[in-house]
Amino acid sequence: MSLRQLTIIGTGLIGGSFGLALKKRGFAGTIVGCDRGAILEHAQSIGAIDVARVNPVEAILGSQVVLLATPVGSIIEMIRNLGPAITDDVLLTDVGSTKLEIVAQARHIFGADYDHRFLPGHPIAGKEHSGIEFADPDLFQGALWYFTPDINREPTTLAREFAGLVGCVGAHIAAIDPAEHDRLCAWTSHLPQMLSTALAASLVEEFGPDARLLENGGRALTEMTRIAGSPYSMWRDIALTNQENLSDALLKVEQRLAHIRENLKTRELESEFDQAHKLRNT
Amino acid sequence: MSLRQLTIIGTGLIGGSFGLALKKRGFAGTIVGCDRGAILEHAQSIGAIDVARVNPVEAILGSQVVLLATPVGSIIEMIRNLGPAITDDVLLTDVGSTKLEIVAQARHIFGADYDHRFLPGHPIAGKEHSGIEFADPDLFQGALWYFTPDINREPTTLAREFAGLVGCVGAHIAAIDPAEHDRLCAWTSHLPQMLSTALAASLVEEFGPDARLLENGGRALTEMTRIAGSPYSMWRDIALTNQENLSDALLKVEQRLAHIRENLKTRELESEFDQAHKLRNT
Repeated sequence: MSLRQLTIIGTGLIGGSFGLALKKRGFAGTIVGCDRGAILEHAQSIGAIDVARVNPVEAILGSQVVLLATPVGSIIEMIRNLGPAITDDVLLTDVGSTKLEIVAQARHIFGADYDHRFLPGHPIAGKEHSGIEFADPDLFQGALWYFTPDINREPTTLAREFAGLVGCVGAHIAAIDPAEHDRLCAWTSHLPQMLSTALAASLVEEFGPDARLLENGGRALTEMTRIAGSPYSMWRDIALTNQENLSDALLKVEQRLAHIRENLKTRELESEFDQAHKLRNT
Repeated sequence: MSLRQLTIIGTGLIGGSFGLALKKRGFAGTIVGCDRGAILEHAQSIGAIDVARVNPVEAILGSQVVLLATPVGSIIEMIRNLGPAITDDVLLTDVGSTKLEIVAQARHIFGADYDHRFLPGHPIAGKEHSGIEFADPDLFQGALWYFTPDINREPTTLAREFAGLVGCVGAHIAAIDPAEHDRLCAWTSHLPQMLSTALAASLVEEFGPDARLLENGGRALTEMTRIAGSPYSMWRDIALTNQENLSDALLKVEQRLAHIRENLKTRELESEFDQAHKLRNT
């Protein structure tokens, strides 16, 4: 493997976990981390990174792969500001939760070179809490890690090597079109988040923040409201960059809830349960 | 303890688990089960009951306590049909998920004797699958078990003894007014169920039943759709007997989702996340 140095920009939950995961699986190269000082100190103290650099331009020096692991808005900004400083023998990749706007920015910055210089990625992994404090070397074990490359081009050697690392930390790789990715994630990730947030916010409004609600609802309520703890900073960017798909999904669920509400006493409720029971994991 | 014989009518997930739990904690009395033949055979084979009776009138003979552990509609019917056959030294209790209509029926049948003959109960325990196959002796460990008695009366000796058994299987007992119970459960249990059902049904409509959706959504989607597998037979009765509270909760969440949808690009989304973050478990 020729990958001797990797830079992770954003050493929070995802970036920090990726560093820890690589170290745990024996990655022999150097991992440079880039973030705010206190976060880098924490990341270095737990062994997620070898070298700490606050300045991104310094952080990318000498690395063959640069992984952008910040919220989507900051990834887009980073591609614009950092892209021109990255030499064309370096692979830039990311972990952004939406892909269309990121891909558009990378195409704009890298032009004809786009598909051998940028590999858009998205690991389906996370927690309801963000930050390096929650980093976990096994976060990607068994998780899906999407790539949305230009399918008409052969992947570069570096892209293959990076995909090898992703497999090495336990993730399953899948390729998907960026537009289809954003629609799928609107339904399977962004919609569930908004449902959980709406449920938790409604409960607080109805009963006040000090009500002992979670024990009243048992395991089901705890599960349904777990991701309501997710940080706005991440979801703001997702909502901004996937608004159309998410609006569509939300509207359809609102209509379905209204249908359920209007049919609490009819057999229509049964057909809703029958339809829901068809959801399978195979 | 004078409780020598207990009848469980409905030996499915809840009734069967209660029998198993009592046996595991060394209950020395006889447990009579009443259900359909095949279910009783299963319940007896795993040791959840000692004696099997298909006929409820035979099943209650000689028992000091009769526990109704069927869906709410059947509990109401059972109180009407079986109530007059139960002698006044026997305690009738139930595990119904809504309490107002059950209490109204018991008051109607038992009249002035109501509060020493009937103890309305509701364990906050369950699974997404029903049936004796899923019975679990530890189902009630750490769970809340609500009673909604007439607070102006002293509990009878039998009611105290039954509450002792409930504590013995690991549940925490709490008393609550039946109307407040139904409103609270509409929000903390019935609303989350309908959200999960609506999410799962929408996903099936959008992507078809064979899409590998759950792995795309990771842990969050799995949790958000787990209870979508719950049986309609149980939820039909809950929806019928708690329609007003549930309608109110559904309407408020629909409005909140619409507000979120209309504000995906504004700071209003932040205040929804802030409000949701206030939900606490203390």
